[in-house]
Amino acid sequence: MRTRPLKVALLGCGVVGSEVARIMTTHADDLAARIGAPVELAGVAVRRTGKAREGIDPALVTTDATALVKRGDIDVVVEVIGGIEPARTLITTAFEHGASVVSANKALLAQDGAALHAAAEANGKDLYYEAAVAGAIPLIRPLRESLAGDKVNRVLGIVNGTTNFILDKMDSTGAGYQEALDEATALGYAEADPTADVEGFDAAAKAAILAGIAFHTRVRLDDVYREGMTEVTAADFRSATEMGCTIKLLAICERSKDGTSVTARVHPAMIPLSHPLASVRGAYNAVFVESDAAGQLMFYGPGAGGSPTASAVLGDLVAVCRNRLSGATGPGESAYADLTVSPMGDVVTRYHISLDVADKPGVLAQVATVFAEHGVSIDTVRQQGKDGEASLVVVTHRASDAALSGTVEALRKLDTVRGVASIMRVEGE
Amino acid sequence: MRTRPLKVALLGCGVVGSEVARIMTTHADDLAARIGAPVELAGVAVRRTGKAREGIDPALVTTDATALVKRGDIDVVVEVIGGIEPARTLITTAFEHGASVVSANKALLAQDGAALHAAAEANGKDLYYEAAVAGAIPLIRPLRESLAGDKVNRVLGIVNGTTNFILDKMDSTGAGYQEALDEATALGYAEADPTADVEGFDAAAKAAILAGIAFHTRVRLDDVYREGMTEVTAADFRSATEMGCTIKLLAICERSKDGTSVTARVHPAMIPLSHPLASVRGAYNAVFVESDAAGQLMFYGPGAGGSPTASAVLGDLVAVCRNRLSGATGPGESAYADLTVSPMGDVVTRYHISLDVADKPGVLAQVATVFAEHGVSIDTVRQQGKDGEASLVVVTHRASDAALSGTVEALRKLDTVRGVASIMRVEGE
Repeated sequence: MRTRPLKVALLGCGVVGSEVARIMTTHADDLAARIGAPVELAGVAVRRTGKAREGIDPALVTTDATALVKRGDIDVVVEVIGGIEPARTLITTAFEHGASVVSANKALLAQDGAALHAAAEANGKDLYYEAAVAGAIPLIRPLRESLAGDKVNRVLGIVNGTTNFILDKMDSTGAGYQEALDEATALGYAEADPTADVEGFDAAAKAAILAGIAFHTRVRLDDVYREGMTEVTAADFRSATEMGCTIKLLAICERSKDGTSVTARVHPAMIPLSHPLASVRGAYNAVFVESDAAGQLMFYGPGAGGSPTASAVLGDLVAVCRNRLSGATGPGESAYADLTVSPMGDVVTRYHISLDVADKPGVLAQVATVFAEHGVSIDTVRQQGKDGEASLVVVTHRASDAALSGTVEALRKLDTVRGVASIMRVEGE
Repeated sequence: MRTRPLKVALLGCGVVGSEVARIMTTHADDLAARIGAPVELAGVAVRRTGKAREGIDPALVTTDATALVKRGDIDVVVEVIGGIEPARTLITTAFEHGASVVSANKALLAQDGAALHAAAEANGKDLYYEAAVAGAIPLIRPLRESLAGDKVNRVLGIVNGTTNFILDKMDSTGAGYQEALDEATALGYAEADPTADVEGFDAAAKAAILAGIAFHTRVRLDDVYREGMTEVTAADFRSATEMGCTIKLLAICERSKDGTSVTARVHPAMIPLSHPLASVRGAYNAVFVESDAAGQLMFYGPGAGGSPTASAVLGDLVAVCRNRLSGATGPGESAYADLTVSPMGDVVTRYHISLDVADKPGVLAQVATVFAEHGVSIDTVRQQGKDGEASLVVVTHRASDAALSGTVEALRKLDTVRGVASIMRVEGE
């Protein structure tokens, strides 16, 4: 074994960073044996010094992250700051000064992955980011490497633990969204400002990263259709139950039937209780992958938290250190397929639509005509009438989002349709 | 991209081999883009020539596998023959003649993994074998690489599709073992001679491989305790249902509480219906991994079959080809931890025991005394009496296998115990 240690600079020392530092210390012998050389924590960049950090030599702590990544003797920079800047500049600077990078930064990877990969490649360095998607669950590596000889057609995942906790709570207790969110906040599963989670921004960043890797095509954050789950109601869950389904916030990346284009989207959807994703409870994450040869695979585990994320970071750290010792680099960006990224209108799926309608003869015929005129085929209709008001629940066959949108627009114009109570996509069948 | 192709020799052209050859042809452009150089099928060794093999140039087919691996211009040998010989000699010869190896051979890896890894390392070559365990499910790579910075404490898996199909059938229909086996055979899930599957030999080989990787310790096939599932009865499933459990044939690799030793075993066991493994149906495989930092992970997918196994082989082929282009090798054997592999007697778990006893006063007291004398603590007891005969169902707290064996031996000597109807371990709690 080489005795000169590999030097690691840690950017950020919050929940994840402190856990990375802790494991680097407590498991130093294991890491050295697995890498083939010891690893040494050479510096820790934080926003404010002065706070005691257990197990970290205060002499290593600095507020000057730029100077740390510019030192020139750093082998690997571990970036767990999050956010776009200063993370982006620090990573680019690290490459320019000879370091490889392990990052857990989904927002940055989703927004600027192509530029960061290019910077890594230009400098002959590694950029690894297993921790950026679904925490501890090995997902980037299996997609990039294990399935490298296969053709992935679809990635369907629960990639946000906060929203899964909320939806699971609504499902199991009948609670409304606000009540379930309050409990998630009280238990520390939701942040004080839960927007990034509940509006699907976090999941959309992960969808962009997963789609890019799965389809060997650049998928930008803006390419991902995004719909949050704040409008999911207890009534939607009752509808889902009647359908033999539950509701999950899903990230869905799909290759079109003809293979020439892909789509990526995040929205709440009904999935059958028999689908493996339906039984993913609490704050757990799971990602379902369908490919030509492998068939259906699922990866399940904790999607967030200090320790699980640190596990993913350290796995990458070992790989990157091994690469440095052998003088090689791991797989970089693979975007050769360069498929068209299609808009949401091209997505084809099934829909569950609840309409409030006038309770009089001929309404169903009118509604059915609108669906037919827009080429959306109806699977089942259920009518419930009461006191002159009625509800109509329509479940469609597969149709494009554009066709469904046109249908809904036309339905809203019908005098007999008082309102569209909910539209929910039905996935996983 | 390099234009000179990497040359691949395929040993074996059965269900898996022909699928590997097919995908290498149909997905040649994708493979080239992902590797950075084209790959060329340079030879296919088979037992008998003369059979037309669709899509394979007859000029490539040979019965002389030895000459093929000795050619000297082969970059990667893909071994999908199975069995110990001639596979072992061919792989060793391949290393000596400059090739890296991708193998799907679980029996060989379990028996001679250490020697094969040593041969690979001595020649500076790669030995990859994702397809040897759980078919298409990425498992070796996540354990070897993604969790390289973590400490795995337990691997609990359904790693044999045939037995899972049979047990699932028994569970869902109430069928007996023979009836379920017959159906599995008729549907092609069980071979004409199902011994390797139903007696747990196949699962034991996989357990040895998984334990070795998970614990960085050599675990030989002989180290794995093995019990088949041919004696599981419909009555056992009724008992399991009463416990809120189902029965699965599990491969279990565990680190001891004090961290200094490991065990590996294969046997049928009850697991709670709430455990993610309980809902793995049909011929699917799933492996549950528990580690210090990552927590609980699960990997799920098809555990066998031509296409899924080919997917795993091709993922390895891409990795090995990339390594060759960069002049590096991937992770080799990691056995530095060199933990003690403890015998079955040291395994600690819970037990469900059904006893046929005389229906008279004092029997329960006698039985309870025997448990107490052997240090096995009882969780629950249920008595059912009828016509002078009675049954006693005992569920224990955690106890060592040695203590339980001693208890059972003493129970058999009691006059009032007519027989031990079944002993089933209870896992996953």
